[in-house]
Amino acid sequence: MYRTHTCGELRIENIGNEVTLGGWVQRVRKLGGMTFIDLRDRYGITQLVIDDKASAELQAEVSKLGREFVLQVKGIVLERQSKNAKMPTGEVEIDLKEIAVLSPSEVPPFTIQEETDGGDELRMKYRYLDLRRDVVRENLVLRSKMAIAVRNYLDSLEFIETETPVLIKSTPEGARDFVVPSRMNPGEFYALPQSPQVFKQLLMIAGFDRYYQIVKCFRDEDLRADRQPEFTQIDCEMAFVEQDDILETFEGMAKHLFKLFKSVEFGDFPRIPYSEAMEKYGSDKPDIRFEMIFNDLTKQAKGKEFVVFNSAEYIAGICAKGAASYSRKQLDALTKYVQRPQVGAKGLVYVKCNEDGTFKSSIDKFYTQEDLKIWAESCGAKPGDLLLILSGVKEKTQVQLCELRLEMGRQLGLMKKDTFSPLWVVDFPLLEWDEESKRFHAMHHPFTAPKPEDIEMLETEPGKVRANAYDLVIHGVEIGGGSVRIFNSELQAKMFGLLGFTEEQAKAQFGFLMNAFKYGAPPHAGIALGFDRLVSMFAGLDSIRDVIAFPKNNSGRDVMIESPSAIANEQLNELSLKVEVKTKE
Amino acid sequence: MYRTHTCGELRIENIGNEVTLGGWVQRVRKLGGMTFIDLRDRYGITQLVIDDKASAELQAEVSKLGREFVLQVKGIVLERQSKNAKMPTGEVEIDLKEIAVLSPSEVPPFTIQEETDGGDELRMKYRYLDLRRDVVRENLVLRSKMAIAVRNYLDSLEFIETETPVLIKSTPEGARDFVVPSRMNPGEFYALPQSPQVFKQLLMIAGFDRYYQIVKCFRDEDLRADRQPEFTQIDCEMAFVEQDDILETFEGMAKHLFKLFKSVEFGDFPRIPYSEAMEKYGSDKPDIRFEMIFNDLTKQAKGKEFVVFNSAEYIAGICAKGAASYSRKQLDALTKYVQRPQVGAKGLVYVKCNEDGTFKSSIDKFYTQEDLKIWAESCGAKPGDLLLILSGVKEKTQVQLCELRLEMGRQLGLMKKDTFSPLWVVDFPLLEWDEESKRFHAMHHPFTAPKPEDIEMLETEPGKVRANAYDLVIHGVEIGGGSVRIFNSELQAKMFGLLGFTEEQAKAQFGFLMNAFKYGAPPHAGIALGFDRLVSMFAGLDSIRDVIAFPKNNSGRDVMIESPSAIANEQLNELSLKVEVKTKE
Repeated sequence: MYRTHTCGELRIENIGNEVTLGGWVQRVRKLGGMTFIDLRDRYGITQLVIDDKASAELQAEVSKLGREFVLQVKGIVLERQSKNAKMPTGEVEIDLKEIAVLSPSEVPPFTIQEETDGGDELRMKYRYLDLRRDVVRENLVLRSKMAIAVRNYLDSLEFIETETPVLIKSTPEGARDFVVPSRMNPGEFYALPQSPQVFKQLLMIAGFDRYYQIVKCFRDEDLRADRQPEFTQIDCEMAFVEQDDILETFEGMAKHLFKLFKSVEFGDFPRIPYSEAMEKYGSDKPDIRFEMIFNDLTKQAKGKEFVVFNSAEYIAGICAKGAASYSRKQLDALTKYVQRPQVGAKGLVYVKCNEDGTFKSSIDKFYTQEDLKIWAESCGAKPGDLLLILSGVKEKTQVQLCELRLEMGRQLGLMKKDTFSPLWVVDFPLLEWDEESKRFHAMHHPFTAPKPEDIEMLETEPGKVRANAYDLVIHGVEIGGGSVRIFNSELQAKMFGLLGFTEEQAKAQFGFLMNAFKYGAPPHAGIALGFDRLVSMFAGLDSIRDVIAFPKNNSGRDVMIESPSAIANEQLNELSLKVEVKTKE
Repeated sequence: MYRTHTCGELRIENIGNEVTLGGWVQRVRKLGGMTFIDLRDRYGITQLVIDDKASAELQAEVSKLGREFVLQVKGIVLERQSKNAKMPTGEVEIDLKEIAVLSPSEVPPFTIQEETDGGDELRMKYRYLDLRRDVVRENLVLRSKMAIAVRNYLDSLEFIETETPVLIKSTPEGARDFVVPSRMNPGEFYALPQSPQVFKQLLMIAGFDRYYQIVKCFRDEDLRADRQPEFTQIDCEMAFVEQDDILETFEGMAKHLFKLFKSVEFGDFPRIPYSEAMEKYGSDKPDIRFEMIFNDLTKQAKGKEFVVFNSAEYIAGICAKGAASYSRKQLDALTKYVQRPQVGAKGLVYVKCNEDGTFKSSIDKFYTQEDLKIWAESCGAKPGDLLLILSGVKEKTQVQLCELRLEMGRQLGLMKKDTFSPLWVVDFPLLEWDEESKRFHAMHHPFTAPKPEDIEMLETEPGKVRANAYDLVIHGVEIGGGSVRIFNSELQAKMFGLLGFTEEQAKAQFGFLMNAFKYGAPPHAGIALGFDRLVSMFAGLDSIRDVIAFPKNNSGRDVMIESPSAIANEQLNELSLKVEVKTKE
């Protein structure tokens, strides 16, 4: 050991001890005849002090030090004259006796402090320096602690952590696979898993009963902000269970984590059917940290002279508490907000509920005070509140109103990072119609079971069939999702048919699973939670990048190691491959 | 829940309870008017009973059951008349009231029992059925339990589990990488990690202080028996430590696992320098479950008429306790054993130490009884023991004698699976000379630090420089290995030079690491343990395949999912790749 103590360990009890510390120079200050060095490691900062009585040799050593030098120092623990209550080690300092520079450092390209002066690109290139910052490292410590808490929780419930293979088989369904050429099987490829879905179902058929894994998954997508080509899932499956069992088990896990890491205790999480979530929030992942639900005004608002409403399929409003004081300018800005192409509304109608009981609206000339009062009552608005109303085709309007609701939540400060309002969204549709390919897609995935009471509609009205599928939503973000699975080969074959697979395609892709169903498959269900997202939420961060030690940028590049990169021709030959980069015409 | 209890849970206290169970039909027996069904799940087997008073309907249901059908059953817990002390549930049975076949089963292709009639290929193809066998599943349960024990141990020592990327950069050094074409960066490739070596060193430079990860690694090698293209490591690194700190920490971890899972407690593990291991056992991974060390007879055995010995660089013998009774036939077989091309000795000399104090040797005509007595004493042989002697060029002879020693260990029953004799081999050479490429290779890897006292020899006698490198060896198998790392860019550059890297190559491959060293790298060291091997050893198995849920065969194929496989041309086009399989000429 290069040290007797860490830099976060020494206290008043240690006074008089001779200690050896190792760490990085955070800063060097001269004050009168004294020099103070802040020595930093993962565990904290300890102040070293050299006075003018120290040997010339030691003074010379100290004068050469710079930021981020790695030192091994020996000295005696002293009580500080001016204590620093903000630092756990703030009552003591080390009277420096010996110093050894283990590694010098060039001047780092950005400051290693809570607030840094380094831009994103630079910090990614020198990620190992960015990770020295407490605020960055603490996120990864939290990640490690959360992972072990998840494991111990599931282990206590007899879940078996089982590693599933990383080199698997490519499936054309869904997002793009990353593939891996096989040298031993020329012309053939493995794929990296988008999820261990099929393997965990096979483990249920194998009688493992309860499976989990914290596992890397891969998706070759065009990266939007905050997507990573490799990401981590808490992946789980249980046999002989129904939907409620999964919800209870993983609600239990979530509560355990909230209690452990956020000191928050919850009652039962609300369970909201998909259809209700769409009606109330226009979203299948509603942010319920605040109310502001949709109020359907379609009936009340029609039949006057206002053509926009009269021709609308759907008219709905939200009530922004206390926002009647919004200025003309603020209301114009809101109108512009909903008119942006990303939202796409044509216009915005407002009704101010004045403190004196009167109403002021952008469409005063079409509606009486009495009309507006009825609307306000429908929306539960009180004097001082602001109604915001959108209209149009129902589905599109719901999505637009959802955006407006979230914007108002932001403006009114209702989306607090440390307020968590978890909920389950349940009863998702089994299928969704894709206009482009003119066929149904699986809303969750092709192994999701329809609700037994809806099975008959599979033939007649497949679009109306609901699934035993569920999402865990926190902060308006889908943290996890899962479903009860099909465990019967005929029903599975029917599903593949509905999804446009030919029998041959289904067999080529999933023959082994269909085959496995023939040897006694138990009922089973599962869930997968996005671990990166969960940790970033607990850490109060907006981006998952900050909870990944070595993330990639939006082009899928690691700018630190400069990957991906070209490989040698001999290697390509061994893999029976040739690169043919097409020049764009 | 489809059940109130598992099939391993019911006891005499449950008598009279109405219970619901789910599980697989292990077997159906008819005995007089009674039918007995053994219902199995992961937790155990429970006996169901139907007597002739049961309804005709129920009897009809039961008559249709076959092996591996999945049932949900309801009934009352009864005390058994003839108890089965071998089964935890053997005091009770269930009086069957209701039965629901959740899934029927075709006749499985092999028996799902401790001893199965299925061959290797068949069991791999139907791996999900093989995993139903208790003996197979228990290995994976052990794996899960060992993983969490490792994590909790390291977590308690403030190690941070940090996920390092799977999509990294290809390095031509060492074994072959699996590569992953990047669609977004045409003509470029990621590589899958052979180990997270560089990343864990960067984490030390980042001040993480203590890192670990249980992590998948990948190697595209021609698969020998018991190698897998993807395998799992317990990967660790510590900063501000010396070799002893790593050895103590991970010896502690090993002891913890032995105590927890094998109820064995150990004192300090022996630490044997590489040179001593070679002298005593002819191996850098000696099996020390038994003694039988090498005894150098080079001086004593020369100078008589026996030309073979006189011309040998090295003559050494082992003493096989109690084997003087070996027959002519057994000795001939041993001679054949060492003469096999895999061993490659020219011949074998034996000396029987008879019970009457005389000696009988294959080279009696060259040596007197007195000569043989001196040899026997040198080897610590007693009456009843057998000396086995090989001679020749030193290094080759050591390897041959090692093989012979292990063979004698097997023959004499000294290699017991449940006897563990862990040890550390330390002080490995830093470099080994490769005759083919006429240059030095890193014995461990290019980041391993030379012993400080040997650094001067780097210029003059690089082959003699020892490294601060160590292996953990159990059962003659290298379970793990690691080293103190270089943390200085000049020394690292010198190492790359010795290993034949040009400056440009070193920069292209490891520039980011060399660069990182410039910003204050702490001294650090680490270790990686083969988790598959460790679990298989604890499970008493010979093959790592049995502790992997879905292993690949010797051609790197998963015969269950039929992977690798061809991919579509569109996908190849997107990846800017063309397959060119060369037909063999």
